[in-house]
Amino acid sequence: MFTETQTLALAKQILSEPSITPDDKNCQKIIAERLQKIGFTIEEMNFGQTKNIWARLGNTAPVVCFAGHTDVVPTGDVSRWAFDPFTPTEHDGKLYARGAADMKTAIACFITACERFVAANPNFSGSLALLITSDEEGDAHDGTVKVVEKLKERNELIDYCIVGEPTAMNQLGDTLKNGRRGSLSGSLTVHGKQGHIAYPHLANNPIHAAAPALAELAATQWDTGNAYFPATSFQISNINGGTGATNVIPANVNVKFNFRFSTEQTEGSLKTRVHEILDKYGFEYDLAWSLSGNPFLTEAGKLTQVAQNAIDEICGVAAELSTSGGTSDGRFIKVIAKELIELGFVNATIHQIDEHIAVDDIPKLSAIYEKMMIELLK
Amino acid sequence: MFTETQTLALAKQILSEPSITPDDKNCQKIIAERLQKIGFTIEEMNFGQTKNIWARLGNTAPVVCFAGHTDVVPTGDVSRWAFDPFTPTEHDGKLYARGAADMKTAIACFITACERFVAANPNFSGSLALLITSDEEGDAHDGTVKVVEKLKERNELIDYCIVGEPTAMNQLGDTLKNGRRGSLSGSLTVHGKQGHIAYPHLANNPIHAAAPALAELAATQWDTGNAYFPATSFQISNINGGTGATNVIPANVNVKFNFRFSTEQTEGSLKTRVHEILDKYGFEYDLAWSLSGNPFLTEAGKLTQVAQNAIDEICGVAAELSTSGGTSDGRFIKVIAKELIELGFVNATIHQIDEHIAVDDIPKLSAIYEKMMIELLK
Repeated sequence: MFTETQTLALAKQILSEPSITPDDKNCQKIIAERLQKIGFTIEEMNFGQTKNIWARLGNTAPVVCFAGHTDVVPTGDVSRWAFDPFTPTEHDGKLYARGAADMKTAIACFITACERFVAANPNFSGSLALLITSDEEGDAHDGTVKVVEKLKERNELIDYCIVGEPTAMNQLGDTLKNGRRGSLSGSLTVHGKQGHIAYPHLANNPIHAAAPALAELAATQWDTGNAYFPATSFQISNINGGTGATNVIPANVNVKFNFRFSTEQTEGSLKTRVHEILDKYGFEYDLAWSLSGNPFLTEAGKLTQVAQNAIDEICGVAAELSTSGGTSDGRFIKVIAKELIELGFVNATIHQIDEHIAVDDIPKLSAIYEKMMIELLK
Repeated sequence: MFTETQTLALAKQILSEPSITPDDKNCQKIIAERLQKIGFTIEEMNFGQTKNIWARLGNTAPVVCFAGHTDVVPTGDVSRWAFDPFTPTEHDGKLYARGAADMKTAIACFITACERFVAANPNFSGSLALLITSDEEGDAHDGTVKVVEKLKERNELIDYCIVGEPTAMNQLGDTLKNGRRGSLSGSLTVHGKQGHIAYPHLANNPIHAAAPALAELAATQWDTGNAYFPATSFQISNINGGTGATNVIPANVNVKFNFRFSTEQTEGSLKTRVHEILDKYGFEYDLAWSLSGNPFLTEAGKLTQVAQNAIDEICGVAAELSTSGGTSDGRFIKVIAKELIELGFVNATIHQIDEHIAVDDIPKLSAIYEKMMIELLK
């Protein structure tokens, strides 16, 4: 008989590995050995310093896949932690460790859910799979995106994908993500002509040239969002111009900005509109674009309903669908997944000193995952 | 009999001293000894590291004063100079040295002019004076401004002041300055609220807040100038906001700006108008002001006419009056001087590698100064 103790013990084992991006340490070895014991086939897909595994049990559809990452963000000043960040510690009903919420414990929850499910349903139809990477928090160039490319090449598709990112706001199950906004960044350099501030007629001040264009970009309403997405937002993160000297008009000013965009926009539509605005002001500029991810969406349907039912049953909470927040590896997986949600622990302390989750939430999340398998593979 | 050789020789002696701000080396010692020989009383007025001398010959009005500085700006990369910057070198009709144009040679011109004038007019009526500092290019806190305070305390006033700054644009005598614009600087910090770029509703972007206000400041016409001054100009020299991270909305943005302002404005009028504009936009800000100098003006009159006549006679050039360019110590002296102009060598190479002047201009400028003494003290 499986009990909650098993998930907690496995979580502690993985949390003890100081696997700061992209160094997996022994996390994937622990995971692979555990899954092999119940029949999973493990395929290592390592690229550069990034370790990835694709684990699968079963050869038929539907494929229910869990996606997650073993890497964690740096600890920050270890002396400020109440407990060593890589010595998972229970205290006052909480489990403290770097990665407790984001997201090693969720991996443990899914693995023990698989163990219970397979033990109870040895001849289940369909497949269980795990896509685990050691670089989600970093560049992510050699992680999930590369595994997805491989799977796509051989036409190995996913029916239902659960990404174990910490999605809950205040209590376990209150929020699940059924999509994410796109993220498009720009680095704009407005060119002027350097000169002495006492002779402005011999110079061309790029800060003055840029100001009204930036004001217009900041004031633009790009869209009003839709049923699943909030309005697209434009934010300038950095602006830097000037030589440091207070008597010199600089040659140029650099502005870094970012769009978080809804499915009402595309990469192309945003680029076109930004260039239209900039071109009105008649200054010279360079603009380098960088797309972090297109928006993706799983409309309310079977996967969201199964998740909401499981959450309601285990937690007595009505889970809201949300597309807010930053990007996740879901943007890569959605390409080969019919339906995809993100569902994990409370995210209040992620990336912070003293990251922690409630110990009681651990068997609950594992039970939610197990109930979803039962529903999706019955 | 004095010849042009004397001015060149004295200039080379002073130019050989590597007197980078505020280190006078032996410049003022050389100057003082030379002036004492023809009867000047030398008063040292040193403050901190800055050396100043007030030299005067005569006890009656009118007082004709030359003002100048023995300090020079740094050489920059000495290996890029054609000749060592502190080994004054004649080549192809030019005299190369740091300080040749700005402005040690002008000091030599005035001293030898005094020598010739005193020899020819031993019983002249009125007074000759020199106000020399070793910090005009730097902070200038302990230089001319302090000497002027002392002179003002004892009610020792100047009738006609000639500042030896390099004022000529293309040829000796083409331009003299009869005033300078004021200079008022501001350091503006616009405050917002830091946050993650994916959650802009939880943050308040100070760059977005500042952009329309900066656009309005840059587009404002402060005045249209007047008979002596061009229009007041506003220029932003530096803008810096952002944490460096591209996913963080910063807490604030800093903007450094500067006014060069005509006598149509006052420090107070500009401050009031800037605050009126900023306050319209409803953001929180701090603004630290710094006044480098109020505008000053000598209207066309006796001193400008005497200078223009002397220039016409020696150079055959019609000198234009101008108030353009940066600030000078004239702003301090004007407080105790009835009339003040700036008149010196061609300024094309000042503060640059290979600073130089035409050797032929040296006796000419000295002769201009001498003719002015004759006219003003006859």
